Amino acid sequence: MLGTLGFTLINGQFQEHISAENRGLAYGDGLFETILVRDSRPLWLEDHLCRLSEAAKQLAIPCDLVKLKRDCALLLTRIDQPFAVLKIVLTRGHVSRGYTPHHAPSERIVSVSNYTQNRNAWERGIDLALCQTPLSEQTQLAGIKHLNRLEQVLAAEELLRRGYPEGLMMQRGLIVEGSRSNVFCVANDVLITPSLSQGGVRGIMRQHIIKHAIKLGIDVRIRDIGISTLQRAEEVFVCNSVFGLWPAKKIECMHKSIGPVSRLLQREFDTYFYV
Amino acid sequence: MLGTLGFTLINGQFQEHISAENRGLAYGDGLFETILVRDSRPLWLEDHLCRLSEAAKQLAIPCDLVKLKRDCALLLTRIDQPFAVLKIVLTRGHVSRGYTPHHAPSERIVSVSNYTQNRNAWERGIDLALCQTPLSEQTQLAGIKHLNRLEQVLAAEELLRRGYPEGLMMQRGLIVEGSRSNVFCVANDVLITPSLSQGGVRGIMRQHIIKHAIKLGIDVRIRDIGISTLQRAEEVFVCNSVFGLWPAKKIECMHKSIGPVSRLLQREFDTYFYV
Repeated sequence: MLGTLGFTLINGQFQEHISAENRGLAYGDGLFETILVRDSRPLWLEDHLCRLSEAAKQLAIPCDLVKLKRDCALLLTRIDQPFAVLKIVLTRGHVSRGYTPHHAPSERIVSVSNYTQNRNAWERGIDLALCQTPLSEQTQLAGIKHLNRLEQVLAAEELLRRGYPEGLMMQRGLIVEGSRSNVFCVANDVLITPSLSQGGVRGIMRQHIIKHAIKLGIDVRIRDIGISTLQRAEEVFVCNSVFGLWPAKKIECMHKSIGPVSRLLQREFDTYFYV
Repeated sequence: MLGTLGFTLINGQFQEHISAENRGLAYGDGLFETILVRDSRPLWLEDHLCRLSEAAKQLAIPCDLVKLKRDCALLLTRIDQPFAVLKIVLTRGHVSRGYTPHHAPSERIVSVSNYTQNRNAWERGIDLALCQTPLSEQTQLAGIKHLNRLEQVLAAEELLRRGYPEGLMMQRGLIVEGSRSNVFCVANDVLITPSLSQGGVRGIMRQHIIKHAIKLGIDVRIRDIGISTLQRAEEVFVCNSVFGLWPAKKIECMHKSIGPVSRLLQREFDTYFYV
């Protein structure tokens, strides 16, 4: 077990504690990224840093990519495991009491933890729940991987209680994403994924799946997914940039087969997530 | 300036740093309370602890009130200023990577900071904005003072930019609360405040205002406040348990007078917030 002992950099220094006044703690005023590391190589690091930087700009949090890259490079040299996860947290730094953000240096927390791939879920698929925990709508934060994740904690608690490895979260009757993933379905040979304009995280793996699918000649549509689309769909899968692509065998009581589109896309990414 | 140097207790110890793995930082997985302290006496401490304890139960975060009271008592002895703010943060403790909450001891962060009352706002009223930053709906977190406060940070940034001391936040065209307060309006001699069933924080000052208003024979209704109610209202005020009750002179371009109900209620609480 790697743990994070000696594997956390705070503002570039090996440390394990942050100020109790950090706005990340006080208000969730910050962003994060989790990145798969294989044999000390981070997967799609540039994409993650690009998303982080864009979201930081949107929230007006200073983001120094040169320093972040240096932090990541330093930690990557310390990893002696085949798989690991690199986590970057960027917060608005110190709090003076009150919500108002004032100009202050942001804080970077970069850490590494152990990770084991779940090849079984990739190959044989998983059962998905429809979460009872709803996803709230917030256009101003939609797409951003910010630190306000209580809804996902509630959903994860629900999934643990109900015995599901992952579940889909809904807004006003529409499927938006998984609790820690994006969702796709295949209906009438069209690959569909929600727009995330009202909420949800714009996943890096989602981007890559869309790009590869287009390259493979698959018809891709960014469109709402209601329950009826989900029922009609021949294939459903969830994805993120750490576990890859997990096909659904079942969503609640709806049985699905692991179809050709899921398998075709998995082949595109197999070498990224496994040997 | 008091600051928090030497005035922060983490799990009962004078400390200023928390683990970078704390779930409060990672996901905003926790709760907080801010309490006005006058001459070393906390205002409505029992009410705040009761709300914290109930919310902790709802989120299944362990909450030891005996230890929290001991922390507060210890800090209160150190305050030599007439006004201060006591802040309690309770988080789900340490994170193992991932949203799923596991049984672990929670973490208590109790701190004190300096505070200056704004008597001018209390006496002469303030201008209120209608925030363009919307408030998201989340029935499962409604009423709770949790650490997911990015919306309030966005609203505070908007208010700073537009030059307002406070603003009202809306959900689907209905007024829910202020960015750091609850809202009341008086229309046809009825005191109205929103139910907070879809979002917002159930304020301690709000509770006390409702209780005192009923005692004074004022007709109180928990009801939606739309823009038309706001326009029609003779009086509008915002409140919280730190600044008390601030009447609105104006909401955007709608002029209001500081009326008899606002003044009557202020008289009930004057000794709590001022000499």
